[in-house]
Order: sequence, then C-alpha cells, then structure tokens
Amino acid sequence: MLQPTSHVSRPPPDSGLPNAALSSFRAVLGEPHALTSEQRLGQVETATFATSQRVLAILRPADRDEVRECLRIANRHGLPLYPVSGGRNWGLGSRVPPRDGSALLDLSRLDRILGYDERMGTLTVEPGVTFRQAYMFLREQGSSLALPVTGGPSGGSIVGNTVERGDPVGPFGERLDHVCALEVVLATGEVVHTGFSRYEGARAADLHRWGVGPATSGLFTQSNLGIVTRLTLWLEPTPVFHEGFSCSIPDGATLVRFLDTARELVRDGVLRPHALGIWNSYKFLAGRGRFPWSMTGGETPLDLGRLKGAEPWLAAGSVSASDDAIGRAMLAVVRERLEGVGLRLVFGSNGEGECAPPGVPSDRNMCSTYWRKRTPMPSDPNPDRDGCGVLWVCAALPFDGEETREVINVVERLIKNAGFEPNLGLISPSARCLYLYPSLMYDRDVPGEDERARACHDSILDWLVPRGYLPYRLGIQSMDALPPPREGYGAFMAALKTALDPHDILAPGRYDFRSHWPPDADPRYAGPSPRVGGGNA
Amino acid sequence: MLQPTSHVSRPPPDSGLPNAALSSFRAVLGEPHALTSEQRLGQVETATFATSQRVLAILRPADRDEVRECLRIANRHGLPLYPVSGGRNWGLGSRVPPRDGSALLDLSRLDRILGYDERMGTLTVEPGVTFRQAYMFLREQGSSLALPVTGGPSGGSIVGNTVERGDPVGPFGERLDHVCALEVVLATGEVVHTGFSRYEGARAADLHRWGVGPATSGLFTQSNLGIVTRLTLWLEPTPVFHEGFSCSIPDGATLVRFLDTARELVRDGVLRPHALGIWNSYKFLAGRGRFPWSMTGGETPLDLGRLKGAEPWLAAGSVSASDDAIGRAMLAVVRERLEGVGLRLVFGSNGEGECAPPGVPSDRNMCSTYWRKRTPMPSDPNPDRDGCGVLWVCAALPFDGEETREVINVVERLIKNAGFEPNLGLISPSARCLYLYPSLMYDRDVPGEDERARACHDSILDWLVPRGYLPYRLGIQSMDALPPPREGYGAFMAALKTALDPHDILAPGRYDFRSHWPPDADPRYAGPSPRVGGGNA
Repeated sequence: MLQPTSHVSRPPPDSGLPNAALSSFRAVLGEPHALTSEQRLGQVETATFATSQRVLAILRPADRDEVRECLRIANRHGLPLYPVSGGRNWGLGSRVPPRDGSALLDLSRLDRILGYDERMGTLTVEPGVTFRQAYMFLREQGSSLALPVTGGPSGGSIVGNTVERGDPVGPFGERLDHVCALEVVLATGEVVHTGFSRYEGARAADLHRWGVGPATSGLFTQSNLGIVTRLTLWLEPTPVFHEGFSCSIPDGATLVRFLDTARELVRDGVLRPHALGIWNSYKFLAGRGRFPWSMTGGETPLDLGRLKGAEPWLAAGSVSASDDAIGRAMLAVVRERLEGVGLRLVFGSNGEGECAPPGVPSDRNMCSTYWRKRTPMPSDPNPDRDGCGVLWVCAALPFDGEETREVINVVERLIKNAGFEPNLGLISPSARCLYLYPSLMYDRDVPGEDERARACHDSILDWLVPRGYLPYRLGIQSMDALPPPREGYGAFMAALKTALDPHDILAPGRYDFRSHWPPDADPRYAGPSPRVGGGNA
Repeated sequence: MLQPTSHVSRPPPDSGLPNAALSSFRAVLGEPHALTSEQRLGQVETATFATSQRVLAILRPADRDEVRECLRIANRHGLPLYPVSGGRNWGLGSRVPPRDGSALLDLSRLDRILGYDERMGTLTVEPGVTFRQAYMFLREQGSSLALPVTGGPSGGSIVGNTVERGDPVGPFGERLDHVCALEVVLATGEVVHTGFSRYEGARAADLHRWGVGPATSGLFTQSNLGIVTRLTLWLEPTPVFHEGFSCSIPDGATLVRFLDTARELVRDGVLRPHALGIWNSYKFLAGRGRFPWSMTGGETPLDLGRLKGAEPWLAAGSVSASDDAIGRAMLAVVRERLEGVGLRLVFGSNGEGECAPPGVPSDRNMCSTYWRKRTPMPSDPNPDRDGCGVLWVCAALPFDGEETREVINVVERLIKNAGFEPNLGLISPSARCLYLYPSLMYDRDVPGEDERARACHDSILDWLVPRGYLPYRLGIQSMDALPPPREGYGAFMAALKTALDPHDILAPGRYDFRSHWPPDADPRYAGPSPRVGGGNA
C-alpha cells in the first residue's frame, strides 16, 4: 500500500509541474498553501483501493477569488486541477483524480457559513463546511430545524456530497431538490450564480430552485463543468413524530414481498424516499464492529450461512410527521401492510439500522471500513491512511421485488466466489427505483487483496451493466467503464465541456464520458478508448 | 387586432423565406405540412396581446426524423425555427416567436403515447400529447393512477407545459420532479437522451431522474437549447382521501395571518406544494363568468369595493392522502391552525376554486379569458382567434404574509389605475416561495386596450423587478426585460447557446437573455440591447 513518509518536496520538473506554475500558485496562495511534499502528495494519492495516479501539487485557496486565480494559472499552463471539498469520497476514490498529473484544488479552507434564515429554513455554505459544522452551528443558534444529512462521515462536505449526488438518509428526500443558488466558478474563471441568485437583491434567490431561464444547477452535479463555491441548502422542520421500525427478513421470498409492499408505501407517501434502508446480515455486522476473527479461527471470508444457519436481511425505516396523530396513522398503515405480508415489526426511535434521530450527522457507519483490519479502529479514523480497503458499486434497479432478488443473488455469488463478504445494502430514492450498493471491505495490507477486490468489483459491473443495471455513481476507476450511449450524447457532452472548459483543465475524465465523444471532438480532450482505462466495462 | 383572412400564400422572397428552403421543407414534410398561407400565418402570429412578429412558414413534422430534417434545412439557410408543442401559451405569447422572421415548428403531429406502465407509474409521451388525451388514455386503460395536470387548458401539451415549467395544480408537486428520460433534438440535429435513457436497455431509464453524470434535463426547460421530442411522466396514485376546503379572507390583516399559517402547513407537509390557491374576488369572478355588464351599466372597470363594499380573497386547497385516517388527521391540523388564526373553513370535495378532483384536466379556467368580451364564450373557445386580451405577470415572492400584502397592494393599485380589474392569484410552489400572478383580461377589439394593457403590464414589471420580485416565467414580449445578471451569467449562457446551436437557429431570444451576453460573443447572436426590445424592464 502506498504510504510515503518522505518530507522531501518533489522537484517540479520530475513531477510535470512547471516551476513557473508553482511560483504563480505560491504567489497567490502563499507558500504554505501550495504543497508539493512527498508526504502530503502521497496522502492525497491514496484511496481505499489501488490507484496509480500522481498528484503534482496541493493547492489550498482561502476564498473564491483565490480559486479563480488558480484557474487562471492552470489555464495558462494547461495544468489540470482536481477540486475536492471534504475529500471523503471513500470507496469511490477519496481525493484521487481519475487522471495522472493534476494539481489537487483543496477547497476545505472555504469553510464559512454565509447565511442562515430560521423562518424560511435556509443555510448558505461554502464547500469546506461539513455536516458536523452545520449541525453544531444550528444547535448554537437554537434552531428548530433539521439538517438533511448523509450516511457518510460527519466530517464530509455538504457541497461535496451535493455535487456528487450522494445519498441522503432520513425523511428529507433528495438533496438536489433542497439546494439552490449555486455559485459556480467555471474553468475559465467566470462566476455563475444559478436561479434567481444571479440577480442582485432577488428576494427569492435562496427560496426558489430554478429562477427564470434554463435550470442549470444540475449541470454541476456529477460533472467537471464548474467548481461550486457556495450553495443554499433548505432545512426542514424537525419532525414532531419520528418513530423507527425494523424487521428481519429471513429469506428471499419474504424479501420480494417486503420490497413490493415497500414500493407501495413509498408511492403512497407513507414512507418517504430515503427513509428506508435494507441491509443484509453482512452489512449489518460490518456496521456494528469488525470481522469476527476468533469465530472464524482467523479465516476469511465469513460465511454466515455455515456459521449461523441463515443470512437474513434487516430492514429499518422511520415514519416522520409534523403531528402525532398524522404520524400514528402513517405508522399504522406501515404496520398493517408489512405485517400483512408476514413481517414482524419492532418499533422504537432508537431502533436498528437507519433509525437514528433525523438531522444528526453520525460516524456510525465508519467502522465498517475497518471491518477486515486486524487492529482496532483508531479514535481518528481515516480509511485512506489506515489501509482500509473499500470499493463500492452503486447500481440503480427498478423497485421490483423479484427482479431485485435475482440481481442480489448473482452479486452475492460473485462476491462470495471472490473471497469477500457480500456486504449489500438497498435504499429507496423513490417509489420507482432501488439503489443496490454492494461494498467490498478488505485489508489493503494483505498482499493481493487490492487486485482481487478490484477484479471482483469489475466483475460485478461487468454483470450488471450489460443487463441494464447502470451505476448511479461512479468510482474514479470506472469513469470510462460504461457502454457507449445512444445517438448524440457523446457529442453533447463534448460540446458542453469544450464550451465551458476550453483548455480542458477541470477534472478531466471525471463524469465526462469522453471515451465516447465523437472522433472529431477537439483532440486536446482525447480520453482513453473504452476498456483501456478501467478495463471493466 | 390582427386577424388576416386572405388565403393567398405569401411569396417567399417578400417574407424572407428562401424558395430553396421552402422547397426543401416541402420535400421532407409534404406540401400540406409546410404552410405559408396568409390565413394560417396570421393565426399563429396572433397572441392574446399585441405582437408584430411575422412568421415565415408553419412546418408540421410527423416524427422525430422530420424534426431533424427541418433543423438541417434551417441550419443550411440560417433560418430560425420556433418550436411549439400545443401552442396554448395564452397570456405569455401563444405561438408567436419573440423575434421576427422565424418558421414555426409545430410539433402537434407528434402525438403518440409511447409507453405506459401501471405498476411503476410511468407514461411516455410525445410533444403533441395533450393533458386530455393522456387522461382519456389512462381511463381507457382502467388505470388507478392520476395524471398531474395544469390549471391551463385540457388541450395543452404535457411536454410544452413541462419545458415551460408551467404550474401544476393539485397534490402532486412540481412537474419537473416527475419527468425523466427526455429525448432532445439539438439544433445541430444531434439527439440526446437524458439520464439513464441514454443507455440502450437501461432498466431504470424511465424510473430515475438523473442517471449518471451531469443532470441535464433542466437545461431544456425555459430555454432554446433543444427540442424535447419525448419524455416520461411519473403518474401518481389517485388519493384515497381527497378533501377540498375553502375560506373567505375578508381583509389584508387576515390575508397576512392566512399566508404565514399556510407557509407552516406546507413546510410541515400537511398541505402539499401547489395544493393551495388564493384568489382575490376579481379572479374568482372571472373564473366563474363574464364581466357583469348590466351591473356596471356597461362601464369598466368593475369596482367591487364600490359595488359590494368589500373585495375579499378566497383560498381553496385540498388535503390528499393514501389512507383515510392519515387524511383526516392532516385535515384536522389544517382546520385547527387556520381556525386558530380566525378563518372559517368550508369543506367539501366539490368546494370552490382549485378543489376539483385531482388528475382530471379541465377547461374551467378558460372562461376568464373571455371576461371582458361582449359576446359569450363559444363552444370551441380560442382566445387568440376571438380577440381575448390576456397578459400575465408571473412573479416569485418570499412566502411571507406581510411582504406579500405590500406587493399585492401596489400591484392592485397599478392595475386599477390603468382601468383594469386587479385579477390576482397566488400559489405556493414550496414552503419558501409564493407565486403571484396578476393577469390583465381585456377585449382586444376595444381600440387602445392593447396598448393600455401592455403599458400596465410593463408598469407592474417595472415596479416588481427593481425590488427583487423577479418573474419565474416570461411572456415573449419580456424576454429582454430583466436587469443585468451578476458576474459571468451572460458569458455562461452565450457559451451554452453557441456550443449547442452554432447557427443560432433555435428560437433565438427565447429565455437566452442575449442582451446581457458579453460584447465579445459571436456577433451572429447579437440581440437587442436591454430596453430596446420590450422597453419594460
């Protein structure tokens, strides 16, 4: 595993970073904020799986104007910049760029909370603001509002999670429906404000999603078309009624019935999107502690079927409402319908799984990244640093019980055959779709595991994608792993990218699918041909 | 009022339409579908307010491939095309292009329902499919699902309403959150499929809003960046519980209390966004019949305060739920809170205002367009043809009682002073924002009314916009009426438009804000300077 310890700065000529560029960056940012030490570069080149991309420098702008200056310098030198907000994209690439030879643009110093309106329920943040920071801020203000949080680390960036379209947890729905007024720095250094926020003094700037004219905020999610330096997040009232429930799902036939009933509960507005999580036993165990080494006599993988005779699933959800009577009536529907298909519900706000109080960021899922480590999770966990192996697949399935069971069976088998635990979770982003997110948790310090995990990850995508189960998020290793899109999509992406980033300096290769651009696209943007980069499509 | 009756075809040289272009269009579409008769052109050049833009031809493609062919011909001849779906954008410009000299691309022959899935709740339509057609289709299928409808005419296009970001009515929320899988023909003729629908065989193509990579669907709403030739609409279950309520709001102080309470009801999820409408007496009357000529002795305007001693507002909403007990509990909250601020609610599914059964398109609001006409509304109403004067303003306000009252008072005064009835409505697209939509209803056959209505419309915008109350939709006469945006927005719009429409042939001037593009933008795209076009900002 890569873990360089040298403090020697890399000589820029070796690294590909022109001396002139480094001098310019240092003149703008100050020397302490344009880093090239082997140690620091090694840290940001390290993800939770094997990567080989080198980073030339770490740039730490203090504000939006310094971001713009960095872009100007990068344009002048044709140097790619890779922006990261919190850098905690664990399992999908952490801070590592998909291509070699970028400078990392670390936005964590832009960490101001710029606006807060309790009455209208808005919070305006910069990319360095973490879920924890926003939560503490609201607590200090005595706010009655809840922050829509993530299942990821409390130290994650709100902006980072939003622009990656990360999954929320809890009753507040899609984050992208709860943000507006993006401030975006384009690769050219131009600044764009989305929606009404482009008008000075617009009274609904923070209160309306699209403003007037084309709705452009979505363009800056899962993309490399701009750097979001500010956005407004919509807060929600803390529910008066919030009751968790969970149930064990003993077998596949029950899982099918559960899912088909859950779809109707979400469709009927009784369960909110994202307020339901379904984990298999392996994921449940990994969320609670480390691999049971003594139980298996030190052997891997864990086989729960052999050890315990069953591999049940656990579903955990919550019902939230602004009023007790409404909440009780909703919970009664949940109970009646799920018990009607043979499930036994356990109630309680402190139930299992996803039933934590809404709006409180938590690191409770962190421990799963240390699952296969032999040493305990430290008090300052850092999976990149500690050689935790984590590889996610994020696939979108129709919300259909039978179809989901069939996919699960195959994915489970692929993972077991590769010697890992089939750590599987499902969430319901809507009444129409399920997200299946298998994760491979391993120990990067065990020789050969990196390669084995990557091969297993790729085999899952290789099975899913041709059958129409596309990923809804991609790890940096898989940006070129998707099949050719239909008709003009490649030309469309090429037109957008070349128009907004004429020197191709912003995160090239990240969600731009350039391997499918038409042959006559600007050769400066040439990407790897499909299957050359990741090789896993 | 423009109402040409001649059947003579315009000679193309006069009209600016090259003979070669017309021949090419006719070769592709067939002669009956490339129209240049004075009569037909006059019809599409006629809106519900004065316009002077000339249309060179009407092109009626039968399918997507003919759309592409039309674009190719238009590119070759540098001829602007102005796409319309249903053409019922009454009050905001009907079918009239914002610029002179376009050919109208009438998409109404693309009228197929291409997909329907009762279990997943999806309906895939072409731009010519109307709300009524989709409703009848679902009825024939015995569907239990409801169509998210509009307050506009039942003959309106679902695609047209979606891409204009028209307001829905009823409990199903924003239409843009309920559509996916757009098929878009770019100006270049390239075809783009948004979200997962760009992958052949993607199982979640119709079930997921964004797919993977940049979220681009929003780009094709309120824009001239592409022609949507197909999309998937998400249907919702017909509510088991659906109860309408209404209340009279006698004065401004009560209106303030009502609005502040309503904001909390929407925030708390008890009232769904768009499930509440608030109309003043003038709007209410206009929605019920024609101007009371006998009561006023033939005089205009109507002054309810003088005639009846009061000008109360009427609020009408509905509570919907998938379960009776949930619905009753929600309705109890609505009742308790609104009665708590002194309002008296009247219940009933067949209540007043917006309480029609959800999912049923209706022409009930049509009669308001004939408000000032002396002749009765015909059985086939057509406000463009019949000289109905209609001019809308659509403004976004913070959802705040006091602030809304102040704005209303001014707008009311401006309209009264101009001799029109202050026909005002409010809807709640979210818990943060109110839409105020004053409309001027007049008789275009009365000399001078067109000019007076336009001046009044402009005076409203002139008051609202500098105070930060921006329009969330624009009439074709006001596309250049907004103030300069902050920073790089103009450059951003210019970059998008020039990249996606290199010959500037797609609806130039429509929501592209080119009067604020940077001076170095391609001169081919030059727009009027601000205040020259509409003169009303």
